[in-house]
Amino acid sequence: MIPTASDTRWLDAAARLASRGRPLARPNPAVGCVLVKEGQVIARGWTQEGGRPHAEAVALEQAGNAARRATAYVTLEPCAHRSTRGPACSDLLVEAGVARVVVGALDPDPRTSGEGLERLRRAGIEVSQATTPAVEASLAGYLIRAHLGRPHVTLKLALSLDGCIAMADGSSQWITGEEARAHVHSRRAMSDAILVGGGTWRQDKPGLDVRLVGLEERSPARVLLSRGVPPDGVKVINDPTQIAQLEGVQYLYVEGGAGAAASFLEADLVDRLEIYRAPILIGNGAPALGDIGLGSLAEAHGRWVLAETRQLGSDTYTAYRRTRQEA
Amino acid sequence: MIPTASDTRWLDAAARLASRGRPLARPNPAVGCVLVKEGQVIARGWTQEGGRPHAEAVALEQAGNAARRATAYVTLEPCAHRSTRGPACSDLLVEAGVARVVVGALDPDPRTSGEGLERLRRAGIEVSQATTPAVEASLAGYLIRAHLGRPHVTLKLALSLDGCIAMADGSSQWITGEEARAHVHSRRAMSDAILVGGGTWRQDKPGLDVRLVGLEERSPARVLLSRGVPPDGVKVINDPTQIAQLEGVQYLYVEGGAGAAASFLEADLVDRLEIYRAPILIGNGAPALGDIGLGSLAEAHGRWVLAETRQLGSDTYTAYRRTRQEA
Repeated sequence: MIPTASDTRWLDAAARLASRGRPLARPNPAVGCVLVKEGQVIARGWTQEGGRPHAEAVALEQAGNAARRATAYVTLEPCAHRSTRGPACSDLLVEAGVARVVVGALDPDPRTSGEGLERLRRAGIEVSQATTPAVEASLAGYLIRAHLGRPHVTLKLALSLDGCIAMADGSSQWITGEEARAHVHSRRAMSDAILVGGGTWRQDKPGLDVRLVGLEERSPARVLLSRGVPPDGVKVINDPTQIAQLEGVQYLYVEGGAGAAASFLEADLVDRLEIYRAPILIGNGAPALGDIGLGSLAEAHGRWVLAETRQLGSDTYTAYRRTRQEA
Repeated sequence: MIPTASDTRWLDAAARLASRGRPLARPNPAVGCVLVKEGQVIARGWTQEGGRPHAEAVALEQAGNAARRATAYVTLEPCAHRSTRGPACSDLLVEAGVARVVVGALDPDPRTSGEGLERLRRAGIEVSQATTPAVEASLAGYLIRAHLGRPHVTLKLALSLDGCIAMADGSSQWITGEEARAHVHSRRAMSDAILVGGGTWRQDKPGLDVRLVGLEERSPARVLLSRGVPPDGVKVINDPTQIAQLEGVQYLYVEGGAGAAASFLEADLVDRLEIYRAPILIGNGAPALGDIGLGSLAEAHGRWVLAETRQLGSDTYTAYRRTRQEA
């Protein structure tokens, strides 16, 4: 059955729930699930810390017998593999007696891929599948890992209106205001690892931690792009392509400086740009980016699409998504 | 009588009408007027080409006898001076028998300043005065000329996300798309003069004309910031402060390059920034601005306030207003 407009809205609701599992669901994908009966949500779930229980298991447990004849909306195909940590979600859905399952993305994991849906169909459950932009975004880290073998990369830039990240003498405290800086900390808390270049590490001695009340323990792993010796507690990679080796990292947050940012862009390893722009002009300051290997202006076009924009105090936050065929 | 919220809305409507007179009303201010009776607009007027007839005269002519007992909303204090080109608007309002006049800005012209309102009051008309941001904006060129002795200056920048106006080799065609470029032409048509730096003039040979169907004849005067010999049909100034000498220019539109932009900013002679931002990254390109004489980051803050933002195709247009005490 082809998903309807209301199916799409419930999938998007499941995608919003999924974000509550990010990043603590790692190494599992952060999945969201809503159970709906007669147009009402009867239960909700998202992947718990460490990856278990899965979103469907949480929602079914919450619903109990009410799950019979309900529709389950799940952002990712329910798993088909039993593990020591719990039964397969496709089996749980069958046992619970749901009438219909609407799935966002198919699971690229070879233990499930297609088999999750097949098991539901064999049990007589009506199955629909269609992804939405919100579902894709909620699974970006997991899907890019599966398809491209590397983490999803966000590049953050904090800029003046004229694109400077500092004055010519290097001073950069502060370009953006408090609200924007707090937002950066919330984005760090959503990441598995933060990366800066060696120059920024030495010059700014950045904390790279989450300084938000209640989220202090959510500070992600720290990674340096450098040819030097790693400081204590910090991973080092020499080249952006080595992010593929960062185990358990679905979401990598690159904070600069201009050289590190440029090398990720030159390698086409940035999936999302997040720009904080302060209403100030610097003039003759430190530019945001080094050489990114651009051959012509025409090449620069068609790569970035506006994804989100909002005011944070007097600063403007604007996010762009890299348009890709492959992911 | 203190103006009410609905008075403010009618003044804002008059301010929108006023913009129809820009820039052809020069050397007069572009003023707007609405006549309202029982909550309905009965006539509208704005300053005509060359400055006459005035907005009030147009609206009163349109209303005829219906103007009796109406309220007149005018963005600028009605003039008190007769001229060979027409009677004083304050006299016209008295003769027409309006019951009330609500005025936005007081006229700094010494022939009117306060006397326009006084003449209305003496005739028994109820008079209120209160300006609004829209009224201020609609009279910016006139008020800045009157208070600071120079034109209102808009600086336009067309940038990549990382603040470049060209690639390192100078190529800049095109950063922004068609919609943004058409918008620039509409902004040129609203200006009395366009200025570029000598380098940009020699390198880009810019047309600086209005290439919009029906508006070709609205191309403004052209001004160069240069120490060289003026080409035919082009004024030259050596220094930004010389804009005070540009006769009949209320609105000056500065189009760059980086040196001219920086020298206007350094002299604090920019009242409005209009930024067209394309969703592209250039990296290591030509920066938007040269040195603007900034001593510290703290100095950069508090100068610019977001005034307007909109999407133009895939580009973002954002305008900022210079915060000033004096104007």
